[in-house]
Parts: sequence; structure tokens; C-alpha cells
Amino acid sequence: MDAKERAGEWAASQVRDGMAVGLGTGSTAAFFIRGVARRVREEGLKLRLLASSSYSTILLATELGLPLATLEQVDALDLYADGADEFDPQKRLIKGRGAAMVREKHLVHLSSRFLVLVDPSKRVERLGTHFPVPVECLPFSTGLVRAELVKLGAREAIVRPAGTSKDGPVVSDQGNFVIDARFDAAGDVAGLDDAINAIPGVVGHGLFTRYADRVTVAVGHADRVEIIG
Amino acid sequence: MDAKERAGEWAASQVRDGMAVGLGTGSTAAFFIRGVARRVREEGLKLRLLASSSYSTILLATELGLPLATLEQVDALDLYADGADEFDPQKRLIKGRGAAMVREKHLVHLSSRFLVLVDPSKRVERLGTHFPVPVECLPFSTGLVRAELVKLGAREAIVRPAGTSKDGPVVSDQGNFVIDARFDAAGDVAGLDDAINAIPGVVGHGLFTRYADRVTVAVGHADRVEIIG
Repeated sequence: MDAKERAGEWAASQVRDGMAVGLGTGSTAAFFIRGVARRVREEGLKLRLLASSSYSTILLATELGLPLATLEQVDALDLYADGADEFDPQKRLIKGRGAAMVREKHLVHLSSRFLVLVDPSKRVERLGTHFPVPVECLPFSTGLVRAELVKLGAREAIVRPAGTSKDGPVVSDQGNFVIDARFDAAGDVAGLDDAINAIPGVVGHGLFTRYADRVTVAVGHADRVEIIG
Repeated sequence: MDAKERAGEWAASQVRDGMAVGLGTGSTAAFFIRGVARRVREEGLKLRLLASSSYSTILLATELGLPLATLEQVDALDLYADGADEFDPQKRLIKGRGAAMVREKHLVHLSSRFLVLVDPSKRVERLGTHFPVPVECLPFSTGLVRAELVKLGAREAIVRPAGTSKDGPVVSDQGNFVIDARFDAAGDVAGLDDAINAIPGVVGHGLFTRYADRVTVAVGHADRVEIIG
């Protein structure tokens, strides 16, 4: 079992009957979701409600036969489990490599407990060491948002390209663009979180600095899971 | 000439050859836009560029034969002129009765000078005296955003209905909903501005607290225009 799978399986083991559970997005979250589906199927685990953070996860849940509540009716979750690109010693995060950080933050905000599922490579002393901060913005505001991110200290702020799947930029599940902003040393990350939110046209971003109190980090290793918090 | 028309005409008189100009939205901005169009037609005024803050204004500019630049290519404006719902002694504003505050703030952010065109009824000691703060949010996040606005002190936070023109809520030019949040006494308005930006799912809102340095308020009266700032 690899590190991600081990973390995902551990998170699935934390789910209890009657819980309202939020499902993250990405390869590590997928191990969690498959683990939950298996427990529903094999153990008769009964959930009050499941909520999805992306179209990607809606498709996976549909494949697995997991019923999803409409996001508009979800007002509280007992548990949300998802991967992260980086986490620091204060349990603050960068998320958004999957471009799903806006709905992910929505679900984290509604959750009492947030299980962050990672492998050891995601641990950093300072956020921004390996990954850019993804910023979702209204398409027309791209130029303004890039310029403001540079003023905030980004040494690079690039509109994420869709790659070979479509021409032009990635379009998010909300119909917006994603700018990847690389910060050499994100010192005051809480201040940066607020400053990015204040840029006109920004819909949301991948810095999670407000939720450390509800975070448990599960670091998967080859032979064990290390639990932080 | 009524107060709004007088303010709009004064603003049109401030435009100079070669300027890049942003066009606001609503009945007072329309007087400005018509004044600019007349000067182009009658005086041969030559503008470098015009940018629109809404579909409403795109339609009006089209009717008047004014060419508009695509917003994606507008990176700086010499002047932006628009109405406001309220202004306080520090030249901070509430905007958004026309649901166009997100693009309006985008253009204000890009402008060196912002002419706020009002009648005397828009002057208040404290923002929120007569008008709610409009908050544009992603449709799925409506419940969360309403709840957080109430935590921030709103005594009411209502999804704006479309009225007789369509069933259900107003949909903004970006495809989102608008929540009208009524604050009895918005004391720390700069703090409120930041706090609303930090709610997940918020795309933008109608409190303008960061732009007082570039604001000139033009208060139209029956017989004159009063210039503040």
C-alpha cells in the first residue's frame, strides 16, 4: 500500500454511522472515497449525507454508487477529508493543484473536522516552498489579478494552461480561470490570504490559513500513518 | 435639469482628448455616458479607450455608437464615473443596487480618478443608513454566505429576487447571486470590507473603502454641482 492509499484508508476508518461527510478532490481523496464506499458496501456504514467538492468527485461518487446531497442544502459537515499540496508546522495549507480549491474551502468552512491526507513530501517549513498558490479569478480580471499578485511578492503569476485536453486556459468548475502564483517565501501567510481575497475579481484561492484548529494531518508512510494534531 | 443629470453632465465635462475612460452603470452613469457621446459627436472629442462595467452599459454604449474595448485588455484608466447608493464623510461608498459592483470595482481599481455622481440623498454619516451592502456569491454558497453575514452583524441578509422579470433570484452578469445584507451601523467599514471578502464563495461586494484617495464626489443640486475632494 503506498503512502497516499494508507492515509486515505485511515481517513475512511474515521467515518462513523450518521455522519455528514465532505469528499475532497484528487488522487489521495479518491483513496478515502473508495474506502468509504467499501465500508458502505461491506459493513453497512450509514451516512447522513455526502457532499462533493468538484465535478471530478461527483463522477467518482456516481461510479461508486454513493448518493450526494446538493451543495445548496449542506449547512454543516462532521468531517471533510482531502489531500493538500503543502502543509506547514502551524497546519496551514496550500491546496488547488486540482483547481477545486473554491468548493474545497467551502466544505472545509462547514466542517467540524478536516482530515488532511498527505505523503511526507508535502511537509514544508514555509508554504510556497514547492508549490504555487492557485488563485481562481473571473476571466476578465486576469490581467489585474496577475499584476496585484506580483505586487504582493509573487515572482511569477501564470494563467494555468489546460494542457493537451483543450486549447487555452483551464476553466474551473465555476467557469473561471486559475492563476498559479509562486511566492519565494510566503512569510506572513495570514496577511497574504487576506490580501489575495481583497483583489477585485478574485473568487477564491488555495491558501488555507483559517482552519488549523479543525485540521488533523495524516501523513502516510510505507508502513504506517503519522497523525499530527 | 435634475440633480443626477447635472452631476452626469459635470462628469462628462471632465473628460479630455486621449483619455481612457470607464463607464459606470445605472441611471446617473447614463447621463454621464450620454454626455460623453454628445461631446464625441458634437465636439469631436477623441478618446483613447472606453470600458464598460456591465451588460447594461454595453447595450447603452452600443445604442449611442460608442466603441468599447474588451475588458481583458484594459489595464489602466484615466477616469471612471459612476453613481453610488451612499457615500460617507471619508468618501467611502456603498454601490451595487444595479448588481454591477464586481465589474465596477474592477474598473475603479484600474482608474487614477473616480468621479462619484450622486444627488444629496446619498450623503450619510454612516454607511448602511439607507441601503444594504450587496454581496455577489457563487450560487451554491448562498447559505454559508448569508449565515456568515449575520455573524458579521447583518440584521438581514436576503437573496435578491429578480422581481417580475424572471422567476427566482437575480443572476449577475457573471452568473452569480446577490445577497443584500443590511447592517444597522457599519462601524468598522474597512474591517467589514475585508471580513466579507474572506467568506468562502464571495466573488465581490458593494463596500468601496479602499479608493477614497482617488474619489471626487459630485453632488448634483437643482441649480448647481457641489464638488467634494
